[in-house]
Amino acid sequence: MTDQTSWVASAQGDTDFPIQNLPYGVFDDGNGARMGVAIGDMILDVAKVDHGLPADLFAEPAWNRVMEAGPEIWAKLRARLTELLSDEGHKSAVEPHLVPQSGAKMLMPFRVTEYTDFYAGKNHATNVGTIFRGPENALPANWLSIPIGYNGRASSVVVSGTPVIRPNGQVKGPNEELPRFAPSARFDIELEFGAIVGQPSEGMISVSQADEMIFGYVLLNDWSARDIQAWEYVPLGPFQSKATATTISPWIVTKAALEPFRVNTPERERELLPYLREPGPMNYDIKLEVALRPEGGEEAVISRTNTSMLYYSAAQQLAHHTTSGCPMRAGDLLGSGTISGTEKDSRGSLLELSWSGKEPLELPDGTTRSFIEDGDTLTLRGAAQGKGYRIGFGDCTGQVLPARALPDWAKE
Amino acid sequence: MTDQTSWVASAQGDTDFPIQNLPYGVFDDGNGARMGVAIGDMILDVAKVDHGLPADLFAEPAWNRVMEAGPEIWAKLRARLTELLSDEGHKSAVEPHLVPQSGAKMLMPFRVTEYTDFYAGKNHATNVGTIFRGPENALPANWLSIPIGYNGRASSVVVSGTPVIRPNGQVKGPNEELPRFAPSARFDIELEFGAIVGQPSEGMISVSQADEMIFGYVLLNDWSARDIQAWEYVPLGPFQSKATATTISPWIVTKAALEPFRVNTPERERELLPYLREPGPMNYDIKLEVALRPEGGEEAVISRTNTSMLYYSAAQQLAHHTTSGCPMRAGDLLGSGTISGTEKDSRGSLLELSWSGKEPLELPDGTTRSFIEDGDTLTLRGAAQGKGYRIGFGDCTGQVLPARALPDWAKE
Repeated sequence: MTDQTSWVASAQGDTDFPIQNLPYGVFDDGNGARMGVAIGDMILDVAKVDHGLPADLFAEPAWNRVMEAGPEIWAKLRARLTELLSDEGHKSAVEPHLVPQSGAKMLMPFRVTEYTDFYAGKNHATNVGTIFRGPENALPANWLSIPIGYNGRASSVVVSGTPVIRPNGQVKGPNEELPRFAPSARFDIELEFGAIVGQPSEGMISVSQADEMIFGYVLLNDWSARDIQAWEYVPLGPFQSKATATTISPWIVTKAALEPFRVNTPERERELLPYLREPGPMNYDIKLEVALRPEGGEEAVISRTNTSMLYYSAAQQLAHHTTSGCPMRAGDLLGSGTISGTEKDSRGSLLELSWSGKEPLELPDGTTRSFIEDGDTLTLRGAAQGKGYRIGFGDCTGQVLPARALPDWAKE
Repeated sequence: MTDQTSWVASAQGDTDFPIQNLPYGVFDDGNGARMGVAIGDMILDVAKVDHGLPADLFAEPAWNRVMEAGPEIWAKLRARLTELLSDEGHKSAVEPHLVPQSGAKMLMPFRVTEYTDFYAGKNHATNVGTIFRGPENALPANWLSIPIGYNGRASSVVVSGTPVIRPNGQVKGPNEELPRFAPSARFDIELEFGAIVGQPSEGMISVSQADEMIFGYVLLNDWSARDIQAWEYVPLGPFQSKATATTISPWIVTKAALEPFRVNTPERERELLPYLREPGPMNYDIKLEVALRPEGGEEAVISRTNTSMLYYSAAQQLAHHTTSGCPMRAGDLLGSGTISGTEKDSRGSLLELSWSGKEPLELPDGTTRSFIEDGDTLTLRGAAQGKGYRIGFGDCTGQVLPARALPDWAKE
């Protein structure tokens, strides 16, 4: 399979979307929103070809119905798409249904049922803990036992390309007695890996069952207002600081496409309880980077890391999510938490990269950044490198716009 | 309007559902799930009568479409239902569409889009803070400035009557070095008031706008595993400890029915930021009680309090929810947080009633309770007392069943 090729010319060579990938998205080329599959620099209008599945799976522009149809259908669809796009015999029937990516706007690929954000990156948790509590208490006592997670806000999940308006909120500086209502001055990114739950559960499930329930993965930027977060998060966790927007990449890369890139989670520093032990490799080897482009300026890559840095896999996160009997549903989105490597230039947030503003980043244009400035565009990219091909996610990007002016009733 | 009467005989006298109430639910009497309105001990099968609204508002058994239709439609429907059920001239046409409540099963009255739980009861926050951190640090520093909230899990919201299975989870006693995976031994209730958002928002809204967006209210029991919570909640808040179930009462009591019972929130102990100030009374005077019935035993009321104890109204909670630009949608459910009065017998959780197990409650059968035992049925009740009538919510009840046996892969 790895040396398979497509009759779509642009699917060869330097592309995120070779025949080995076939990720799922929703696009609009001016003729309405439809479900699409990326191949090279084109999009296959999947409902229009002889896909061999019930038409109602493609009746609304969202991949939820395909998810709900289950793993056998997922495998059938992928096999059929591979056949249609690699076998020259199908070219004449399929080619009319290819649309150039350059002329299409990407929309949300699925309806997010609920959104949960984890904290599964150990270097990130250690860095943040060191910044806020000092190196001796960096990692919370439960961190090595629990894939810590909290519920996020599904209504704020947006697709790559959506502008992000800097939030207003309650902030209080360390030397201020009372909070003010003001635009966030410490607005940040979080480089994350998002897992999409494709099947429902009732009761507690194992890590293996969890892995089977996952439909695919996206890159995920959990925009975070650090100053709002610092004032609001004790004792019940982040709320408005994380509710402005969470951006996901436009293509769902299927679990099947990532199979060759499975790796083990890092060695355990504390033995896990049995329900969290993995029977095989469930982490992935995917190179990640973060780029920052000032308005009208030049893009600079400010961080490079890898999903393999995650201490807990998405399957472990999902298994833990069900321990209390919490029902999971198709379309649930699980963010991994920020992924940071061990080196300074591999950190997945500006909070860490600028060490809470103490060591501002220098950009090629001579300006510096502690946190995001208005007009900045932040882009996450990721790809797994196979032999002679690359499984890419497409850009996960968003430009930050100035905060909304305060309405009169919110002014002091 | 307050001395209006219905031609339905049971809607007079001792009933939660007089003509002044007219709450909305979904019922199944064996002939399928339908939208209903409670009147006395009957349910009006609303889609069957001449309600004067587009039929598609009643096409699926959930009140979301009516919510989405907006406040003018809410007012029209309520006026028409009042007319149909009070004017004798409609009796012959309407009476055939009344179904006895005793023969109907109540279902979820609406699809919960997302669920947020607040912490808006000051006595509760003070009690919990005192138990966990001592009286000098009882209230978090932000509490008097922010209606603290966190995102809950919508998939776990169930209707009154649904059994609740005691959760398993990671627990660690204060003298244990490592966590165990075990059934929760400190399973608890939380007596709350739930607000249902009936209209969407984009960007930040005022407290007045928030009040207008609220469709109605329910009683809400946010079942909580205190031992799981204690181990998991630092630093990102409660997660699996609150994801087993949240029970709501079966009838949505409309905001309109509660208008006569508006009261001011308690006096501010710290001036609020302007965006949180209320232009008028947005709290309610609703008497609440909690009852506990051991399996096969006698029910005892273990707490009595009032929604007026809330420091922040639902409108304030909702306004704060939108500060970051977080989009709200019809069907969002906001729990108030536990409502406790100032006296010992007015506390809204067993954690407070038994002071974390140090002062177990004595029940009429001679047994004691620190937390919930298997087989116990916990019931919340609430009603606003008008002149000659009562606006009730119906029971919000659930029996706790033993934890599921651990699967082999979860055993040590």
